[in-house]
Amino acid sequence: MMAGKRHLLAPGPTPVPEAARLVMARELIHHRGPEFKVIFEEVRARLQWIFETESDVLSLTCSGTGAFEAAMINFTRRDSTIVSIGGGKFGERWAEVARAYGMKVVEVPVTWGESVTPDALAAVLESTPEVAMVTVSASETSTGAWHPIEALAQVVRDHSEALFAVDGITAVGVQPIPMDAWGIDVLVSGSQKAFGVPPGLAFVAASERAWERYAQSDHPRYYFDLGRERDAQRRQQTAFTPAISVILALNEALKLMEEEGREALYARHERNARAARAGVEALGLQLFARSPANSVTAALVPESVSGKAVVRAMRESYGVTIAGGQGDYADRLVRIGHIGFFDGSDMLIAMSALERALADQGLDIPFGSGVAAVQGVLGAAGRVG
Amino acid sequence: MMAGKRHLLAPGPTPVPEAARLVMARELIHHRGPEFKVIFEEVRARLQWIFETESDVLSLTCSGTGAFEAAMINFTRRDSTIVSIGGGKFGERWAEVARAYGMKVVEVPVTWGESVTPDALAAVLESTPEVAMVTVSASETSTGAWHPIEALAQVVRDHSEALFAVDGITAVGVQPIPMDAWGIDVLVSGSQKAFGVPPGLAFVAASERAWERYAQSDHPRYYFDLGRERDAQRRQQTAFTPAISVILALNEALKLMEEEGREALYARHERNARAARAGVEALGLQLFARSPANSVTAALVPESVSGKAVVRAMRESYGVTIAGGQGDYADRLVRIGHIGFFDGSDMLIAMSALERALADQGLDIPFGSGVAAVQGVLGAAGRVG
Repeated sequence: MMAGKRHLLAPGPTPVPEAARLVMARELIHHRGPEFKVIFEEVRARLQWIFETESDVLSLTCSGTGAFEAAMINFTRRDSTIVSIGGGKFGERWAEVARAYGMKVVEVPVTWGESVTPDALAAVLESTPEVAMVTVSASETSTGAWHPIEALAQVVRDHSEALFAVDGITAVGVQPIPMDAWGIDVLVSGSQKAFGVPPGLAFVAASERAWERYAQSDHPRYYFDLGRERDAQRRQQTAFTPAISVILALNEALKLMEEEGREALYARHERNARAARAGVEALGLQLFARSPANSVTAALVPESVSGKAVVRAMRESYGVTIAGGQGDYADRLVRIGHIGFFDGSDMLIAMSALERALADQGLDIPFGSGVAAVQGVLGAAGRVG
Repeated sequence: MMAGKRHLLAPGPTPVPEAARLVMARELIHHRGPEFKVIFEEVRARLQWIFETESDVLSLTCSGTGAFEAAMINFTRRDSTIVSIGGGKFGERWAEVARAYGMKVVEVPVTWGESVTPDALAAVLESTPEVAMVTVSASETSTGAWHPIEALAQVVRDHSEALFAVDGITAVGVQPIPMDAWGIDVLVSGSQKAFGVPPGLAFVAASERAWERYAQSDHPRYYFDLGRERDAQRRQQTAFTPAISVILALNEALKLMEEEGREALYARHERNARAARAGVEALGLQLFARSPANSVTAALVPESVSGKAVVRAMRESYGVTIAGGQGDYADRLVRIGHIGFFDGSDMLIAMSALERALADQGLDIPFGSGVAAVQGVLGAAGRVG
């Protein structure tokens, strides 16, 4: 490949648009000064727009996992029972966090690659008394599956007094997940996904129902005290020194999202996702998720091939970074990210490199069939991103 | 002032050198790829160099306060007793964190602006059984005071089995604080201070004595589990997605520090600190710290004047951002930061704006005396930064 020419198509971090990158090269501003307040107020409003909520969307300086932890320990108690929907590394992480805090966890088991059914959740809720929180990852990044969030929210309401906490890290800004309309109590996301800015910030929004339970929460915490954070952020400040440069970049990226519009943003992601799926299927690979999210396309590699070797070949020989599998599927999956600032050409690039890397592994690939399938989805009826 | 021309002289965030800013404008790299590992290995070695330690210096994606919390909850137990040296907002923050986790806190009271004496600490340790950790802020950013860390470390060793945990947020890279040589068990710092990169990263290094207690620690934690973090970072990874762009910037800034050399770095900070002190004293202001650190010069404004008004006038009329006081001194202090990438000209700029802003408040200022005093310290015997 050309020295240094690289293409990042991992499911996060995602490519940072130029306007967001350049603002980070400017001289730094102080987070207690008036200029920051103006920008942070804009960021707060734009985050509410993309979360589709009237609640405060709090920005925390940490990874998405930190936001999981904050979401969990501010609205539950030490003696709380959590119902955790599994089905992947991130869905299962909620349970790990709850156990680290000594809470009782009842799991809704989900096979990796599958999506939970509302009935399965209802059955667990019916047999579990006094559930404080139900957790799920909307778009399970480790498998590419989408869980039926709107229906799950209804089940939670119908069968319990529990809060419904959703990991939207690779969902918000990718496909519709209207927090208020669907009745999500706690929604989490991260800067390095659809927002297309570097990692360093994570977001937590909580409903009024959730905040009512904040006062009763008795977990020890200091940095992740969301009440303190909400008080500060309503004054366009943060409780502690924030990742200023990432906030400045975020505002630029949010402006681009706003200009594109929510519907067009979702349509572009959906089109790129369909293109990626069509491409891998044309190459004879099996999609891992039965009900795929529009964030990441996870495909099983043939038994004769190492997924890790494919990922490495794509990076080293063709300059394209995608991700392999996680957990038990570390060597069995390839995962192509199409979260954030991607257009159809990026899907073509990913598929071209995948075809070539699979052929390098000795597979008999119908050369050109992947990129042709991508091209078929992209179509000619006007460019949608 | 010229539209947009600004000078940041707060005690953090501090100005980011161009090389560090520009690397953040490049396309993002993936934190699980080989290129990141090479850079992170360099960062880890350079952090050990500036911490003067053989221990791992762990990078966490959070503010300095998050690192305080991590430092405290990984090496103590719920039933631990903490001895906390006060004397300012940050020294007292250690006690707040300990209380949030239900630990017993015995304070060594220190008047703001004063430095603790080794005898005062010894007296508290002699009357307090089984102390698990002694905490202090080396350079107390809220008052400008330096605490005698080397002597305190000796007192801790002589009078207890306690770990000695030091906030070096505005000390590391500013003046000598050799972790291993002085017997510091836990040392914390943050990216936006002497390192001169944007906020988003904090650092924790812990001695072998501290790590021996990690296994006995029973505080709930997930994101701030330092054992998990150490395992990952020894593989040139982080446990969770890190603030990649800040790490890239950090490596550039650390290279500059390495080129300058530790002794020259400390000499430059010392010279700038002396210049700032000479300047404010020439203007008739009283230094707040009896034993000042080289990080920040805190000066009391005359009773007739509002410190906040001076800070605002400096920013709005002269384009210079410094900080006001904190806590009870919010309106009584001005604090000039000289942590990080500053040279003598910056001290001149700060003093010029301070003179003008004080005059604007109606004070009878001997005009030019502050900048002349700065110039006197800068001298002519070769430029030291």
